[in-house]
Amino acid sequence: MGRVTVRRPVLRITANGTTSRPDTMAAEEPLEIRVNGKPLSVTMRTPGHDVELAHGFLLTESVIGEAGELASARYCDSPGPDGRNTYNVLDIALAPGVAPPDASVERNFYTTSSCGVCGKAALDSVKLRTRHSPADDPLSIASDTVIALPDKLRAAQRVFDSTGGLHAAGLFDSDGELLVVREDVGRHNAVDKALGWALLQGRVPLSGCVLMVSGRASFELVQKAAMAGVPMLTAVSAPSSLAVDLAEEQGMTLVGFLRGSSMNVYTRAERVSVGKIA
Amino acid sequence: MGRVTVRRPVLRITANGTTSRPDTMAAEEPLEIRVNGKPLSVTMRTPGHDVELAHGFLLTESVIGEAGELASARYCDSPGPDGRNTYNVLDIALAPGVAPPDASVERNFYTTSSCGVCGKAALDSVKLRTRHSPADDPLSIASDTVIALPDKLRAAQRVFDSTGGLHAAGLFDSDGELLVVREDVGRHNAVDKALGWALLQGRVPLSGCVLMVSGRASFELVQKAAMAGVPMLTAVSAPSSLAVDLAEEQGMTLVGFLRGSSMNVYTRAERVSVGKIA
Repeated sequence: MGRVTVRRPVLRITANGTTSRPDTMAAEEPLEIRVNGKPLSVTMRTPGHDVELAHGFLLTESVIGEAGELASARYCDSPGPDGRNTYNVLDIALAPGVAPPDASVERNFYTTSSCGVCGKAALDSVKLRTRHSPADDPLSIASDTVIALPDKLRAAQRVFDSTGGLHAAGLFDSDGELLVVREDVGRHNAVDKALGWALLQGRVPLSGCVLMVSGRASFELVQKAAMAGVPMLTAVSAPSSLAVDLAEEQGMTLVGFLRGSSMNVYTRAERVSVGKIA
Repeated sequence: MGRVTVRRPVLRITANGTTSRPDTMAAEEPLEIRVNGKPLSVTMRTPGHDVELAHGFLLTESVIGEAGELASARYCDSPGPDGRNTYNVLDIALAPGVAPPDASVERNFYTTSSCGVCGKAALDSVKLRTRHSPADDPLSIASDTVIALPDKLRAAQRVFDSTGGLHAAGLFDSDGELLVVREDVGRHNAVDKALGWALLQGRVPLSGCVLMVSGRASFELVQKAAMAGVPMLTAVSAPSSLAVDLAEEQGMTLVGFLRGSSMNVYTRAERVSVGKIA
């Protein structure tokens, strides 16, 4: 659809003066995901890979567990101001027998837990819903392989180079080979697109794989990784406390501050074998 | 409540070897906001300034327009696993005559627009809901004042220094004086806390002020600024296309890539007077 970037005029002010020039920026448009015709969510995303995004979103929200549970995905006719289809509404038909999501579940999730709204309830909700167990995953990866991931992710980012404005999520195998990279204005969307790709490839659970994100590691990103059976999540920036708690409970290896030639390993460090670091 | 940071053990791997040590990280806990006893939203936030967060959230969702429309805010009794109150459920009572939010509005917002789910519908939804008009705001600010904002924001960040993991939002006047800074694991929450502070101080609309955020400028952050009547939003990183569109339509000055001694001005550049830049 070619709507991944947009050009706009910009006034650039520097120590050397002021210039007016066109600037390339990441496109952002709403995407409404419907399930069996019923609106489920609206997310602000960078257009493209929408079907993967929907697969990843429904996977990580535990609506589906494999690609076969989704019967079809098609854009609704949703005309914009110019009368042309916006391609911003995607209707997902679930396979027969797959229960549609309860729209109220998300909102009331923590309150239905026995212990109220707290970190433990959030952890319990993941335990209750995940179909995979990263805890027993035999992944073993060399520290110098991990150190090399950020550069590989950055090299694979197409749109970032032109806009400087996109989050990225990449999947790698234990040799550091890139399986897929996806970019989006939203951190969650980039991860959903990458995990949705894996689901469509029949690669979920993502045993032996590493998910790398360009920003921080929040609870919700660890949750998404857990729902896809990813045994290791690495992030360029800091994790939150609840992200570490969830990684620990799920038996996932969590790495933060992966920059330059160093990293912090917060959980299940035995999967990272320390070798030479360049 | 002293739960802003948490300490956890971490294995640090560097070129010089491996060390095990405690690490300080940003706390993340769910917060449920109820309105008149009815659950409205659950957000993952860094505990602290929760009442400001709720004020800012309800302001930017156009439920309230001034602090007086909110009668009271109190923590519900929400015991955690140890039996003690988690302080993670905040019940907001609206003043008599203030209409409670329709929980379905958010989900169906774009689809009720005449032109379907598209960028224009998103812009229209803000136009429909905002009570303020940044377009006519007489703010004028020197470029060297703008250039100095990131260092001031960073200097005011308390928790970032210890965890490296928090987003920040700061409000400044046109002389570059910091009015308030708030930090959170969530970008939106940091902005809601800062705007909620302003509402409680009787400073909304924030005429003549600048909102500065530590990350990117997305549609939703421009929307929040617009709802609080902020005439200028500055961001360290890139804006999205729809953020620029909304700033333009609202008559707001949008600055991105505010780093070192330069910046990009995307909209309403006449508010920035170019002087000497260090």
